[in-house]
Amino acid sequence: MEVRKQRCSMVSKDTPDIENILSLNPKICGHARLVPSSETKITKKHWKRNKEKHCCSRKLLEKNFDDIKRTTLSERGALKEAARCLKCADAPCQKSCPTQLDIKGFINSISTKNYYGAAKAIFSDNPLGLTCGMVCPTSDLCVGGCNLYASEEGPINIGGLQQFATEVFKAMKIPQIRPPEIPPPEDLPESYRAKVALVGCGPASISCASFLARLGYSKLIIFEKEEYHGGLSSSEIPQYRLPHEVVQFEVDLMKDLGVQVEHDKALGRDFTLMSLKEEGFEAVFLGIGLPDSKTTPIFKGLTNESGFYTSKDFLPLVSKASKPSMCGFKSVLPHFYGNVIVLGAGDTAFDCATSALRCGAKKVYVVFRKGFTNIRAVPEEFELAKEENCEFMPFLSPNKIIVKGHHISAVEFIRTSQEEDGSWKMDEDQLVKLKADFIISAFGSSLRDSKVLEAIKPLKLTNLGLPEVDKSIMQSSEKWVFCGGDMAGVAETTVEAVNDGKTAAWFIHEFLQSLHGFPVPKIPSLPKFYTPVDMVDISVEMCGLKFKNPFGLASAPPTTSSAMIRRAFEAGWAFAVTKTFTLDKDIVTNVSPRIVRGTTSGHSYGPGQGSFLNIELSSEKTAAYWCQSLRELKRDFPDHILIASITCTFKKEDWVVLAKMAEEAGADALELNRSCPHGAVKRGMGLECGQDPESIRSICLWVREVVQIPIFAKLTPNVTDIVSIAKAAYEGKADGVTATNTVPGLMGLRGDGTGWPTVGIENKTSYGGVSGNAIRPIALRTVSAIAKALPGFPILATGGIDSAEVGLQFLYCGATVLQKLPHFGAYLRHKEDILATYKKQVDLLDDKLKPPQNRPCSQHVRPIPQIKDVIGKAINRIGTLSDLDTKQQMVALVDEEMCINCGKCYMSCNDSGYQAIIFDPETHLPRVTDDCTGCSLCVSVCPIIDCIRIVNRTTPYQPKRGIPSTELGNYCDNPFPLLAQ
Amino acid sequence: MEVRKQRCSMVSKDTPDIENILSLNPKICGHARLVPSSETKITKKHWKRNKEKHCCSRKLLEKNFDDIKRTTLSERGALKEAARCLKCADAPCQKSCPTQLDIKGFINSISTKNYYGAAKAIFSDNPLGLTCGMVCPTSDLCVGGCNLYASEEGPINIGGLQQFATEVFKAMKIPQIRPPEIPPPEDLPESYRAKVALVGCGPASISCASFLARLGYSKLIIFEKEEYHGGLSSSEIPQYRLPHEVVQFEVDLMKDLGVQVEHDKALGRDFTLMSLKEEGFEAVFLGIGLPDSKTTPIFKGLTNESGFYTSKDFLPLVSKASKPSMCGFKSVLPHFYGNVIVLGAGDTAFDCATSALRCGAKKVYVVFRKGFTNIRAVPEEFELAKEENCEFMPFLSPNKIIVKGHHISAVEFIRTSQEEDGSWKMDEDQLVKLKADFIISAFGSSLRDSKVLEAIKPLKLTNLGLPEVDKSIMQSSEKWVFCGGDMAGVAETTVEAVNDGKTAAWFIHEFLQSLHGFPVPKIPSLPKFYTPVDMVDISVEMCGLKFKNPFGLASAPPTTSSAMIRRAFEAGWAFAVTKTFTLDKDIVTNVSPRIVRGTTSGHSYGPGQGSFLNIELSSEKTAAYWCQSLRELKRDFPDHILIASITCTFKKEDWVVLAKMAEEAGADALELNRSCPHGAVKRGMGLECGQDPESIRSICLWVREVVQIPIFAKLTPNVTDIVSIAKAAYEGKADGVTATNTVPGLMGLRGDGTGWPTVGIENKTSYGGVSGNAIRPIALRTVSAIAKALPGFPILATGGIDSAEVGLQFLYCGATVLQKLPHFGAYLRHKEDILATYKKQVDLLDDKLKPPQNRPCSQHVRPIPQIKDVIGKAINRIGTLSDLDTKQQMVALVDEEMCINCGKCYMSCNDSGYQAIIFDPETHLPRVTDDCTGCSLCVSVCPIIDCIRIVNRTTPYQPKRGIPSTELGNYCDNPFPLLAQ
Repeated sequence: MEVRKQRCSMVSKDTPDIENILSLNPKICGHARLVPSSETKITKKHWKRNKEKHCCSRKLLEKNFDDIKRTTLSERGALKEAARCLKCADAPCQKSCPTQLDIKGFINSISTKNYYGAAKAIFSDNPLGLTCGMVCPTSDLCVGGCNLYASEEGPINIGGLQQFATEVFKAMKIPQIRPPEIPPPEDLPESYRAKVALVGCGPASISCASFLARLGYSKLIIFEKEEYHGGLSSSEIPQYRLPHEVVQFEVDLMKDLGVQVEHDKALGRDFTLMSLKEEGFEAVFLGIGLPDSKTTPIFKGLTNESGFYTSKDFLPLVSKASKPSMCGFKSVLPHFYGNVIVLGAGDTAFDCATSALRCGAKKVYVVFRKGFTNIRAVPEEFELAKEENCEFMPFLSPNKIIVKGHHISAVEFIRTSQEEDGSWKMDEDQLVKLKADFIISAFGSSLRDSKVLEAIKPLKLTNLGLPEVDKSIMQSSEKWVFCGGDMAGVAETTVEAVNDGKTAAWFIHEFLQSLHGFPVPKIPSLPKFYTPVDMVDISVEMCGLKFKNPFGLASAPPTTSSAMIRRAFEAGWAFAVTKTFTLDKDIVTNVSPRIVRGTTSGHSYGPGQGSFLNIELSSEKTAAYWCQSLRELKRDFPDHILIASITCTFKKEDWVVLAKMAEEAGADALELNRSCPHGAVKRGMGLECGQDPESIRSICLWVREVVQIPIFAKLTPNVTDIVSIAKAAYEGKADGVTATNTVPGLMGLRGDGTGWPTVGIENKTSYGGVSGNAIRPIALRTVSAIAKALPGFPILATGGIDSAEVGLQFLYCGATVLQKLPHFGAYLRHKEDILATYKKQVDLLDDKLKPPQNRPCSQHVRPIPQIKDVIGKAINRIGTLSDLDTKQQMVALVDEEMCINCGKCYMSCNDSGYQAIIFDPETHLPRVTDDCTGCSLCVSVCPIIDCIRIVNRTTPYQPKRGIPSTELGNYCDNPFPLLAQ
Repeated sequence: MEVRKQRCSMVSKDTPDIENILSLNPKICGHARLVPSSETKITKKHWKRNKEKHCCSRKLLEKNFDDIKRTTLSERGALKEAARCLKCADAPCQKSCPTQLDIKGFINSISTKNYYGAAKAIFSDNPLGLTCGMVCPTSDLCVGGCNLYASEEGPINIGGLQQFATEVFKAMKIPQIRPPEIPPPEDLPESYRAKVALVGCGPASISCASFLARLGYSKLIIFEKEEYHGGLSSSEIPQYRLPHEVVQFEVDLMKDLGVQVEHDKALGRDFTLMSLKEEGFEAVFLGIGLPDSKTTPIFKGLTNESGFYTSKDFLPLVSKASKPSMCGFKSVLPHFYGNVIVLGAGDTAFDCATSALRCGAKKVYVVFRKGFTNIRAVPEEFELAKEENCEFMPFLSPNKIIVKGHHISAVEFIRTSQEEDGSWKMDEDQLVKLKADFIISAFGSSLRDSKVLEAIKPLKLTNLGLPEVDKSIMQSSEKWVFCGGDMAGVAETTVEAVNDGKTAAWFIHEFLQSLHGFPVPKIPSLPKFYTPVDMVDISVEMCGLKFKNPFGLASAPPTTSSAMIRRAFEAGWAFAVTKTFTLDKDIVTNVSPRIVRGTTSGHSYGPGQGSFLNIELSSEKTAAYWCQSLRELKRDFPDHILIASITCTFKKEDWVVLAKMAEEAGADALELNRSCPHGAVKRGMGLECGQDPESIRSICLWVREVVQIPIFAKLTPNVTDIVSIAKAAYEGKADGVTATNTVPGLMGLRGDGTGWPTVGIENKTSYGGVSGNAIRPIALRTVSAIAKALPGFPILATGGIDSAEVGLQFLYCGATVLQKLPHFGAYLRHKEDILATYKKQVDLLDDKLKPPQNRPCSQHVRPIPQIKDVIGKAINRIGTLSDLDTKQQMVALVDEEMCINCGKCYMSCNDSGYQAIIFDPETHLPRVTDDCTGCSLCVSVCPIIDCIRIVNRTTPYQPKRGIPSTELGNYCDNPFPLLAQ
């Protein structure tokens, strides 16, 4: 340590007020720190964010129906999670999803911020994609197969991602449209006007009707006995797991296709299967669920008034009183107190348990016959109840309900035990009594209602009392009647009910078409989900060439062979540039290894690399191969654009020969590549030639003379002034440029000083080309600089283009998702108390709490820009620094509710900025002072999206000059004094 | 879809064998997929990686003592987790750690691959850092305060990171040394030779002795009654949570400082407090733990033979039979069968439960008096037992043990319940009987042993029967006797016991020094952990300037003010370059906003940005301010190097004036900055001047003429040939260069086409400077190219230098951590069976299973390089591509055991490579074919470190030319035909 005097007048020492600000900023401590354990035991409570250990006080949850799903993700969370997904080849998640959702596809879309694309993929396979994202027991479905279970970071939160993408889509308020491949109703054969009845407006029917409508059927009617729709999703799944507006939204999407829903129409009361047939319905789908509770004789005579509920009574009562917009009339929650006993251990039991807490129960016991290892619910459902301090009592079977006066007072249980052979024993000598003020039985449901049984005649029933169903096509014993959901005996979850409806839709289609003598394809081919967004024209014309869309493969490893280009065209890419090829005399052989992982995004392994470096040369394949390939590909894909990338030494005759070969082979255009960063310099074929305007101009002129097709010069970014090179190409009569090739670099060195890649026993390396997102800022600058200098001169852009984000940002600008509030220690408890008090007195069905209407969609559709309209739109706003206004100063503003108290803003402002953020030692909330210069570094380091915003400064800005200068006036007025001279 | 003919001879179509390989490669599907739910229910089982829902069969765990901690991390996992940590300002994790570990500090070290630095930070505050990383109930400690609890991704796995860093250090086999600030023993006063006895070689004593030894005490003796050390860590914590070699390792570190351990010395049998005093011990630390089990009268007369164990009997028996190297003799595991009942719900109870499974129990019931909400163990301990299919029975208090013959057959329990007022009731009428073959009671421990009680006289005891202790200094009623661990009544965890020992160490120090009349500092100042690594000289000399280490602050936002440089010097930075300053007439005012987040590492928010972009200009502070600052800083930090960065317009008189001002103010060197990428071009002060060699040469010469101190030219990377600019500086007699400034770029555009940052209502932007890891490959290339062209010409390197990784890689090359094997579905079950069979018959104490000796450390210490030895070491291996050998071809090799089956290698090889990887549809294992060209793209995309390696090709390499050319011979022999001409 230096010994030094401190002077008040020192400029290199923080003033006392700044030192005060810095007191919490991390400093290096020269010794070990010492705090007695007894003290830390108290201190840590202040900072605690999770539940206190052996804390038995429960959270006050009365009337609190806010989201409790741990899977709900903000945009930050969704992007982090999507980036973590490996997008595995033959993804097991998809194989484990009943609807076969393209999970890795939609997660990939989220990771490129293509939220619409993600939602489209989800709704294509699952019309209830948002519901399922919220309620699927994913650990037993998709997540159970996630390969990341084999890594420490654990499997992907697939449900949360699904919910995120579809909620963003919901906020877009875009309707579903008929698939464009289906002709308009009037052009379809009569068979598509067959009347189809769907019974019960729950998940199975909504799914079935959606797919039938997408297939082209126009007379689809759902009969629903309740005044609300959604079936079990509305009546039994609590609001904190599935808000009613989600059901509403998905029903609206279905109705967009013309499906009609008739309410207050009950099977067995208002119609029967046979009456439907008489009314001319050619097919019926039964998706009514199981209406009756399973029960035991000991419940006989017990009523709601005496404190007894079945889950089938209780959950709808809770839903009606907690879901604004579900019913026309206002209901009130059941009023509970004291001990509530829930019988059963399925997901419904846990929904009853957590709902009971919200009805005022002081303590909830979930009591079940078997042990924890046999529990029916998935772990995540059990965990939610545990989190809310429910108690669990295994190995008890209810034996007697004890009633005092007219109200339940206790339950007597018999102890059960499992024998070594796995069989279960009831020990009638071991009786356990549990005080109970209310009982909810959740033993599942069945079909006993005699009116319904009568109405579904003549269906054959199984010995379980359910319709006999061919489970691979969901057809009943009557060829025209199909079943799905609980009634069909396969589905145990919403998503399986959805898939029943989906399966039935295809086979109803097959059945109806067969009635009219039309065959359907052997491999089921259900249309995807479409909206007006899919109709936007994204084609673009350049140099007389028409591109179906602006996306193509650059000349790079993905075009190593022409078969790979063929596959790309089949997948939808509009154009491809061949790997650069040469005359045979110049052909190369590559070294290995040669393509290495980037280190520019930290220590990242697997997908999501920020960059790569390669020392790969031009194609190892001959010009003959490529010319033959060009002929084949143009023949097979006349609508796609094929650009041949060629290179030669600096000899006119070589360029002429090769360019003519390529043109004759049918290339739509040529890319003249003189910019390979690691190209063999001595051979006169690489980067260095690309840095010389004169050489570029000559080559372009040589080729221009002999070919008719457009030619593009590929530019290297590794020049002082790329514009001069582009101008040389322009003067050389090139039709455009490709900007840019990779950036020359050395990715890194290993600990022993050898490079990576390292070749041969000599451990040699050479500079390679850096590609990927790391070079995007350079490529963006390059492209815009050329565009500005040569307006209208076509540019094929490459370099870090990993998504359609820019084109799609306008679609998601309105997205908002639930952001969990951050709290810890006493603040957390205090906040919970305030919330509990508020919740207790709120009117859950208040009109103000009703979600905003989704429909009708806005009539004011703005004109949809075409690609040509957006090209170059930003150029005029990109200037030199002296074009920017130093008078329009801004400052940072922190949203304290969103803040998670990490202090990154505080640290960066102090160590790299202006000491303009104060950090409270107790609350850990940051506060921005007047010293803020609006530099926005704090925004750049904040981990929470939109938590810090930069807003206009309201007071005049005076830079702190340290020691003022007499030469200066008001700097704001004259930021660039030299310019004024 | 194009209609096209397929010809066998097509080159642009994959051959049938390649099409076969491609069958699992993702393709875009034009319609929704359909699989009936009944089928998926079966399919998904094949891919399942987690536990089957309501699966009650337990894993066969007999004699399986492998690691079961979910927190254990591989290097990949550790790097991912460390990157996720926000390194919060006033970190609550640290405040919640009993030993006040600098958690964010050590995690930051891990994230820069400075594993040694992480371990040093951990052991500095906690000599049992590895033990605590493995066994700490972190959810109740550090993790409980983690700010990321407020985000969806959840809190950081701090224990796992701590374990990772300290295990890597353990593998380095480096001893602990005395802190360098402590004089050698012979130079210390007599007071440091005071004899101190520590009783019991458990965590508290090991910690206390370690800190006393670091303080300089040389006569420290630990008395341990057992033949092994470690106390409870050895005897009671199972091998699968804490391997014995960890304890051994930490004891060895303590012994490195000269602490002696005497085994078979029991308090009360071999010595007493008073006998120690008579033997001349001036202070005693009691850290023996509590030797006796708490019990109840109902256990009276029960023995191990009858099937009854206390945790204090049982766990040591298990340890002795499962921890190779713990004991001199071989023990056997207790042999269990049938039902085992564990009584209690603390962490020990769960250790007993999971141990019982390993002793052969068929079913384990953990039975406890209260409910789940009152459980004493932290959730992670409960979860482990749940994972292994233990059963849980709450609200039962043992009443009677039923013995049949000579063996336990059942336990009778009384039902307990909690009243509304929180009090507990025992209902003697409700009896529950549970079949039991073995019982383990885990009710905690106490001090009852009369010999021990006699031996600790004359200590005063509390009404709990424990010594009275001042809990803030751990002193007993006798000033010379200190206590820690269970005995002191504060610690409930190992880490708290460690902190008791740490606290006691300081106050024993204070006590002993006071005996000799020496005061100690008021603020406890315990020395840190040191090893020979800390002694390595990392100073470097350049241009006659001596740098304490090679790290300094570049001219950038962190040197906005001179007070920030002062703080950096205090923190250990060796040099700093001021923010570039100008003459007053050229002074600037910045626009706001101006520093934005990078987009080159994906959508990342918070720490770990791959890049930033700024449009900040030179300093807003006057030259007078900076000159005054230089004077103050040089006066206060004469050993640190201060470089003044200056800029002027292209006028000799300006450069002369400013350079002389800076030299007179005391700058050690000057940096002449002509390379600001967004500098005001029109003013003649920015980038464009820096691109002109002539201008650089002139400026250097002008300044060279008038100052004596070294001058460095700051270079922009944005030139065609940076070497020519560096040469100009060299010719201008500059002493060196700074390479490089930021790279000009445009970070991105928002959805509406405006840039970011965007300034003013006109929404204008300008190209800015990209900094950070994204430009590292460019900076590395630039620096090495200059070094190669101008050998010995000094270079100040900047650009993406975020860690000391390169210098440290040699330290971690031997690191291995536990890698969890990946499995799913039936394979998983099969693998478990094989493992279970193997485990059952293995000899747990086999000498082959003993961990390798840590000590003595290797005597062959390689010479330690100095910084000067590594400078430029790589240069000769960096050449042009033609220097690399195409004959030394390589191929990829996949390690199937490490593979997590994601198929990224397969996908990338097929879409960007050579279709040389086959992917098995059932096992999802990749296999590399002979077509592999060793390009190493698969390695670059594999998420698992070292799972794919590139190995030498054993067969000759023939590039696939597509269509062969007659002009060509063997390409391998002549990769660059032009060169041979």
